[in-house]
Amino acid sequence: MHDKINLNDKLSLFDATWTPKIIAELNGQQVKLAKLKGELTWHTHEDEDELFYILDGSLTIQMRGHEVHLGKGDMYVVPKGVEHNPVTKDGASVLLFEPCSTKHTGELVIDRTVTDQDWI
Amino acid sequence: MHDKINLNDKLSLFDATWTPKIIAELNGQQVKLAKLKGELTWHTHEDEDELFYILDGSLTIQMRGHEVHLGKGDMYVVPKGVEHNPVTKDGASVLLFEPCSTKHTGELVIDRTVTDQDWI
Repeated sequence: MHDKINLNDKLSLFDATWTPKIIAELNGQQVKLAKLKGELTWHTHEDEDELFYILDGSLTIQMRGHEVHLGKGDMYVVPKGVEHNPVTKDGASVLLFEPCSTKHTGELVIDRTVTDQDWI
Repeated sequence: MHDKINLNDKLSLFDATWTPKIIAELNGQQVKLAKLKGELTWHTHEDEDELFYILDGSLTIQMRGHEVHLGKGDMYVVPKGVEHNPVTKDGASVLLFEPCSTKHTGELVIDRTVTDQDWI
């Protein structure tokens, strides 16, 4: 981890949606980039808070009983144990900050669950 | 932590340089915003990696024997134990990710050391 990391350069390296890519690791946490379009699935990270920061586009994070609408430059932390579903009709590029232990879709496994996330 | 956090809104709340402001906390880590101009001081975080993400402007991180030049959209992780000095002639607004335990200027205390960092 001795090179600078340009986020636009990293975003240009992939197109696949719902496949987070790791760009940095520090203090047991990872920084990831993801492209989102449509919706993922309802899931919960029982032990990990999860940070979303919107680099481009817009994202709604649905939670049971409420939801937040995020645009470019907005950040939101989904607290551990809170069931959530990210949804974006128009698409979004996001930065995630979460512990290395965080599973893509929590304990739920679906077709699109990415078990081994790649570094870019 | 149930509200969304807009980084531009948060940046508009303060002008002071070299006084990191906390905007989020998760998994024992904090997200901070800081405005930088000039240089801080050489210091080391013995036990904490420190992430810099440049929101605006430019920043050079001097380390012993090399330095990195960061512009808007660049990210860099200073590994724990690496002595460093952030320098910016033209100024920068940066986002920091680091453990809650991280001291502003490591074990060094100077006039500008901020011991109790504020939430905004």
